[in-house]
Amino acid sequence: MGEIKVPADKYWGAQTQRSLVHFSIGEDHMPLPLCHAYAVVKKAAALVNAADGRMPQWKADLIARVADEICDGKLDAHFPLYVWQTGSGTQTNMNLNEVIANRAIQLAGGEVGSKTPVHPNDDVNMGQSSNDSFPTAMHVVTLLEIEDRLIPAVEALSDSIQSKAEQWMNVVKIGRTHLQDAVPLTVGQEWSGWACMLEDALANLRTAREGLFQLAAGGTAVGTGLNAPAGFSKAIASKIAELTGRPFVTAPNKFAALGGLDAMVRASAGLRGLAVPLLKIANDMRLLASGPRCGLGELHLPENEPGSSIMPGKVNPTQCEAMVMIASQVLGNDATVGFAASQGQLDLNVMRPVILANCLHSIRILADGCRNFRVFSVEGTELNEPRLAQYVNGSVMLVTALSPAIGYDKAADIAHRAMEQNLSLREAAVQSGYLDGEAFDKLVNPLDMVGNGVAGA
Amino acid sequence: MGEIKVPADKYWGAQTQRSLVHFSIGEDHMPLPLCHAYAVVKKAAALVNAADGRMPQWKADLIARVADEICDGKLDAHFPLYVWQTGSGTQTNMNLNEVIANRAIQLAGGEVGSKTPVHPNDDVNMGQSSNDSFPTAMHVVTLLEIEDRLIPAVEALSDSIQSKAEQWMNVVKIGRTHLQDAVPLTVGQEWSGWACMLEDALANLRTAREGLFQLAAGGTAVGTGLNAPAGFSKAIASKIAELTGRPFVTAPNKFAALGGLDAMVRASAGLRGLAVPLLKIANDMRLLASGPRCGLGELHLPENEPGSSIMPGKVNPTQCEAMVMIASQVLGNDATVGFAASQGQLDLNVMRPVILANCLHSIRILADGCRNFRVFSVEGTELNEPRLAQYVNGSVMLVTALSPAIGYDKAADIAHRAMEQNLSLREAAVQSGYLDGEAFDKLVNPLDMVGNGVAGA
Amino acid sequence: MGEIKVPADKYWGAQTQRSLVHFSIGEDHMPLPLCHAYAVVKKAAALVNAADGRMPQWKADLIARVADEICDGKLDAHFPLYVWQTGSGTQTNMNLNEVIANRAIQLAGGEVGSKTPVHPNDDVNMGQSSNDSFPTAMHVVTLLEIEDRLIPAVEALSDSIQSKAEQWMNVVKIGRTHLQDAVPLTVGQEWSGWACMLEDALANLRTAREGLFQLAAGGTAVGTGLNAPAGFSKAIASKIAELTGRPFVTAPNKFAALGGLDAMVRASAGLRGLAVPLLKIANDMRLLASGPRCGLGELHLPENEPGSSIMPGKVNPTQCEAMVMIASQVLGNDATVGFAASQGQLDLNVMRPVILANCLHSIRILADGCRNFRVFSVEGTELNEPRLAQYVNGSVMLVTALSPAIGYDKAADIAHRAMEQNLSLREAAVQSGYLDGEAFDKLVNPLDMVGNGVAGA
Amino acid sequence: MGEIKVPADKYWGAQTQRSLVHFSIGEDHMPLPLCHAYAVVKKAAALVNAADGRMPQWKADLIARVADEICDGKLDAHFPLYVWQTGSGTQTNMNLNEVIANRAIQLAGGEVGSKTPVHPNDDVNMGQSSNDSFPTAMHVVTLLEIEDRLIPAVEALSDSIQSKAEQWMNVVKIGRTHLQDAVPLTVGQEWSGWACMLEDALANLRTAREGLFQLAAGGTAVGTGLNAPAGFSKAIASKIAELTGRPFVTAPNKFAALGGLDAMVRASAGLRGLAVPLLKIANDMRLLASGPRCGLGELHLPENEPGSSIMPGKVNPTQCEAMVMIASQVLGNDATVGFAASQGQLDLNVMRPVILANCLHSIRILADGCRNFRVFSVEGTELNEPRLAQYVNGSVMLVTALSPAIGYDKAADIAHRAMEQNLSLREAAVQSGYLDGEAFDKLVNPLDMVGNGVAGA
Repeated sequence: MGEIKVPADKYWGAQTQRSLVHFSIGEDHMPLPLCHAYAVVKKAAALVNAADGRMPQWKADLIARVADEICDGKLDAHFPLYVWQTGSGTQTNMNLNEVIANRAIQLAGGEVGSKTPVHPNDDVNMGQSSNDSFPTAMHVVTLLEIEDRLIPAVEALSDSIQSKAEQWMNVVKIGRTHLQDAVPLTVGQEWSGWACMLEDALANLRTAREGLFQLAAGGTAVGTGLNAPAGFSKAIASKIAELTGRPFVTAPNKFAALGGLDAMVRASAGLRGLAVPLLKIANDMRLLASGPRCGLGELHLPENEPGSSIMPGKVNPTQCEAMVMIASQVLGNDATVGFAASQGQLDLNVMRPVILANCLHSIRILADGCRNFRVFSVEGTELNEPRLAQYVNGSVMLVTALSPAIGYDKAADIAHRAMEQNLSLREAAVQSGYLDGEAFDKLVNPLDMVGNGVAGA
Repeated sequence: MGEIKVPADKYWGAQTQRSLVHFSIGEDHMPLPLCHAYAVVKKAAALVNAADGRMPQWKADLIARVADEICDGKLDAHFPLYVWQTGSGTQTNMNLNEVIANRAIQLAGGEVGSKTPVHPNDDVNMGQSSNDSFPTAMHVVTLLEIEDRLIPAVEALSDSIQSKAEQWMNVVKIGRTHLQDAVPLTVGQEWSGWACMLEDALANLRTAREGLFQLAAGGTAVGTGLNAPAGFSKAIASKIAELTGRPFVTAPNKFAALGGLDAMVRASAGLRGLAVPLLKIANDMRLLASGPRCGLGELHLPENEPGSSIMPGKVNPTQCEAMVMIASQVLGNDATVGFAASQGQLDLNVMRPVILANCLHSIRILADGCRNFRVFSVEGTELNEPRLAQYVNGSVMLVTALSPAIGYDKAADIAHRAMEQNLSLREAAVQSGYLDGEAFDKLVNPLDMVGNGVAGA
Repeated sequence: MGEIKVPADKYWGAQTQRSLVHFSIGEDHMPLPLCHAYAVVKKAAALVNAADGRMPQWKADLIARVADEICDGKLDAHFPLYVWQTGSGTQTNMNLNEVIANRAIQLAGGEVGSKTPVHPNDDVNMGQSSNDSFPTAMHVVTLLEIEDRLIPAVEALSDSIQSKAEQWMNVVKIGRTHLQDAVPLTVGQEWSGWACMLEDALANLRTAREGLFQLAAGGTAVGTGLNAPAGFSKAIASKIAELTGRPFVTAPNKFAALGGLDAMVRASAGLRGLAVPLLKIANDMRLLASGPRCGLGELHLPENEPGSSIMPGKVNPTQCEAMVMIASQVLGNDATVGFAASQGQLDLNVMRPVILANCLHSIRILADGCRNFRVFSVEGTELNEPRLAQYVNGSVMLVTALSPAIGYDKAADIAHRAMEQNLSLREAAVQSGYLDGEAFDKLVNPLDMVGNGVAGA
Repeated sequence: MGEIKVPADKYWGAQTQRSLVHFSIGEDHMPLPLCHAYAVVKKAAALVNAADGRMPQWKADLIARVADEICDGKLDAHFPLYVWQTGSGTQTNMNLNEVIANRAIQLAGGEVGSKTPVHPNDDVNMGQSSNDSFPTAMHVVTLLEIEDRLIPAVEALSDSIQSKAEQWMNVVKIGRTHLQDAVPLTVGQEWSGWACMLEDALANLRTAREGLFQLAAGGTAVGTGLNAPAGFSKAIASKIAELTGRPFVTAPNKFAALGGLDAMVRASAGLRGLAVPLLKIANDMRLLASGPRCGLGELHLPENEPGSSIMPGKVNPTQCEAMVMIASQVLGNDATVGFAASQGQLDLNVMRPVILANCLHSIRILADGCRNFRVFSVEGTELNEPRLAQYVNGSVMLVTALSPAIGYDKAADIAHRAMEQNLSLREAAVQSGYLDGEAFDKLVNPLDMVGNGVAGA
């Protein structure tokens, strides 16, 4: 395939360099967390190979040392490849193999590029193929990003909302269904619903994460494990579990692990399952904060910045807007993931980089978005209590409390009277003759209408 | 709202009739299984109300009797409404309320339409709102459809594929990654990967189903349970569990249950999680069966029908094609569900009918599709063993087995020789001088290259 | 392939019957409008074949006569097939061929099923393949449905909105950006924006329709036109144009026409382009109509039906909700279409029925939805003028009119004073000392702030 | 809102800095091409304001000078904001306003941050709001990116494919429909179909671009043009047209232009319309190149890099894979755009940055992907002519040519004989007795079966 020049100050080799030339597409680089996770895989392989006597211990130690440097971010400048490359991620595998080999050679006092004493394929890639090591690194990084980056951010947001819910559990407000006035509930109940949605989404996300624990490593090129010794797949999964502190295991069927990416689809669905309620919550918050004088005006969101370049003094629900945009992106990313995962052909799915990039993108913006949404909006939100009271007192839908006593049809008659003649509900009730004011006051009491707490009747 | 005429031979009333007029949109009718499940909810409510003394037992028995008629499909002609109606499903709730009331009145010897002695709102809807009963019926029907219709169909398909896998576990074939010749595996291994994908998707679907067990009933209009007595929500969930034989429970937070539809989103993601590997498997099967003379030709699919109106004798992988189209539909349906679920506003999500319809549609076509795909394609698939052997013997990629012995670089040199000079791999190896024929024969044996069974090394 | 029994009272034959057995999937039947359009294709082919002397005129006349019966809906019971069938639509082509042949044989006094004197393949299918005739029928039916069903419904809706816009062109209201109070505009301006969005979507839909005019007929099996005589493709396109009164032409490249379905993707994008603003408009309308007492309350939508089974007297924006659900469905349908169209393989795209079904589904529900939304909601919408005036007078954002005179920073100071001290804007302005009341009154006049009409400055 | 520190070496001000703090989400930065286009808008506004006498010429010239520096990329380091910010893009507008003001102040010898003599709101933003200027910049940048970056790349790819088509127009090959052997066509015909798909997609993209020519500028905050003088909207559109050399005009209805983003949805649909055939073409190419010994093997794609870290000598269709992944991403991006565009509320759509970012992302990766796909794969593709001939000679489907002579049913009989007895088609024909060898040779000639060129019969 001819000669190719590699920069002297970089550890990568010819295969990385070729990829840079052939896949100079856009600005989407292989995410660094993937490269770090891949280094863990390389380290684990080397240690297992040494333990089994297939590789001298000094060589494995060298490889492990370089892998640690990569995990510490010291070699980030040496992973320049693009997402849009071969669909197996082979070029990123070779990028890892080349950088580790060359840096190890350098540490050993050898000549960079000489493949001696550490060979990128024969040593760093020993017992592996891109076809099993790339999906292994995908699972590792996605799991770590979900657990270490995303879940804590969502938990903190959920806790913050739940804490507001508790604070406001007894503040009565009007309910709205179909955007139309309905029967009352408390502000705390409404917020508890949001917190519950996030808790459910978190529980789902934890479940959605399960498939990621199964690693393809040991399947090598097509799942048969050719050129990997007996026991290698279990040993490397064990070693990765040890290095990361997570319960990784070897995938029970390597043909499925190479041919499909279903665990990633499920993880992505877990991310979408979080985006959906976040979108709803952010939408609700900005709607309840609409105004200040011509909207619902029940909530005051923090004023973080001037809202308009032309309208002086305007303040906007910008954190909600960012969250809604993030959620939209996650929905689109998930569409890409589902589609791409269906496009595997025969013994390998070669849509891996696009699936990985979309999952990590979704995780990152969801995590950061949840943090900022919490710190800069949720935590500083306050109630407009006079407005809340005014709505409760004015609503006609409190009439619902009369139904068990006088029946739906008479209650409807009272509601129509109130609306048509612009009466208060009490006035309309008394006017109707179905009950007197005293009976009305006994039956229609907003405080009695909000049930016995969070869970409903 | 004026007078409206209702057909004399129908049990429905004015509200159903109004909906027929206002929502005459398309040909998508509210699925009958939903109406049947809704009848279970109505029966459960009546029985609980009677047990608590809020309703005379004879009335509850009447309601229960009509509900049973509905479940038996005897009143299907009385549920004419469209999917495209109010987003809360109120009109379908009223359709149930009206039909049950009128049929019960008839059974009691009363005058249909008189609301006496059974009132659609005060009696049939007692303790309920559309806002909690419709999502309850959604969960019930979706759960039943997944468990009773879909899972058995997928299990049967998976078993059928697994059984083929076992039958062909020792038939060696060439692997293909990136659609390019790779190292060998066995036909059984390849099929075991497909079976494993379906098993994983089934396990995921079972998990995705979990949220459906939580029922909104008892939350009534906004989640507070207004007009439902204390204990009602638990009692009705219990009763529905008893009537259906499934472990339904009351949702712990009714505000989330009414404001969101996240359990349905998760169920839909479970359906998508099945569509993705089905698409891949059907694609693989038709690719492996391509030919008969100008394709891969490894598989013979059953010949169910003439394939072409113009090309005599042509046979096509039509079951695979139907499956691929079904999977595409499920991906789109799932996009609708995720989007719609994000569009809840304040205390109610009013995208319920569209979400329900898409989930049930996906379940139905996946279930029927899996059955037909199994019966009319998978079960009758046969191998073209001469072709399989020919590929294994011709492939250059068996060279991989030489790497551990002679290193990647020399092995690559042999592969290039073979391709460039159109040699057999053995010829090229010997020509290269890196090893002799005897050594070659010892190292390169397809039977040795397929590993120790399904799980890889 | 063995014997198969066909019902005696049906015109279809063995191939249709086999398809019924093998593809009994769901309840999605091949849309009848497609069958009718396919009959037009069959008639056109027969007439062209007769004109060229390849078929006796009496036979072509018989075929044409049956085709007319099909178009008139007289034979609808004879097209029972499912959407989920072979991806080329071959089975529906054969359904047409069989029904036409048998009915023609019957009319000719022959024996149904005898293939004499009219053969389903040799005669009815003469010069055609499913691979060119099915996409031809797809284009014809999609074009007709867009032009005859959808566009008039959207035009009527757009006109209705535009007429409201003109009626209310001078009613000042508060603008809202980010859901927050902004500077005023008129109700008519706001509605004119909605009408303009629909007009733009219509213009786009008309453009999106263009590709449908190109017909694949004449390409036969793979695009080469094998077994179709020279000139056939142009002649049949001409004949179809004559029969339908639309400017159909032959596709310039048959290989693209058979291998892809890009014209359908573009048409579907046109449908999505309509769903997007419809969703926005329906959302806006229900938000502006929120209330009656605890929402924005600017609009009164018609009260078509009781809104709640539990809350007496409640009225909901149900037409808006149906429209929003329809739009969600169209977005999902479009996702299916785009995905499916990308899945063509080599010389044929075999995702045709699913693409067709989704496009026609979207057209149907959009058309019916637009009609009902117009008749039952838009036309009866009324303004709450006191509320509109109250908002305009109370809003602080009128301060924007002061910026050109006193600068953004001072204007912002006045706005903050008004909000913090709960003053009217005028009071805050005077208090600030930046200008006096007289100057304020001159600068801040809502009527002057709404510009010179629809188009802005 | 308190004090905030801004880096001394940056031209941005407090509002940009606040946004950096509040929206530190992910790594998605506002694309620089948007900032450059926004500078054009600012320059145009200043020049129009000066021409009308609202701004001194020296000030407009200063602003224009800084805008030119921005367009030249000299100030790229001063646009640090994230995509995930306020949905109106206000913070990016203020970033532009602040940078231009401060750099202009510096050039004028004033004190950076003093707002004198150039004020970010009163001067740089004169006659504008974010609500009209951000969508204006969106249209400008999207149009320029489509025209200058994407269309040339697609044209070059299409030309390259067309040129191959012409080169191979007379090389006969077997057709494949349903992946099954069909009647022959020429390689050139197949490639001409791909070129035609791209040409159609280009034509569609050019049409899809039309709406972008309409600019919102002049509508200011809500579409009424408040604070923009009469004639401003036309004048600024004209000026932008002059500065960019493209026929931009003022949008006829500013309320639609601010409330919706439909022109962007249509542009995105145009991008998807390109991704769909690109996916199909890349899929076809890699399938036809499958092998080398166990696949279809009709095409040789260039060997750009070693394909496997474990299988020596393996070569993969990596450019095709990158293209398929790119297309998947574009489909997901388009889903985000369609969804986001539907989420406008009342007088403003605040999903602008996410829509912009997804459109520009799609354009960029499509353009770069098309270029690399062409240079590194299409241009170097070669035919495997012996294989092509072998398939044509072996295929049974040439039987189709017999149908017009002997009828479909007899032809089918011959095809079945050939397959079942493993005969050549000629042998089977003669054996059948329907015709003799001489007649066969006359009727079945692949060269005669490929029609009269590109357009089919």
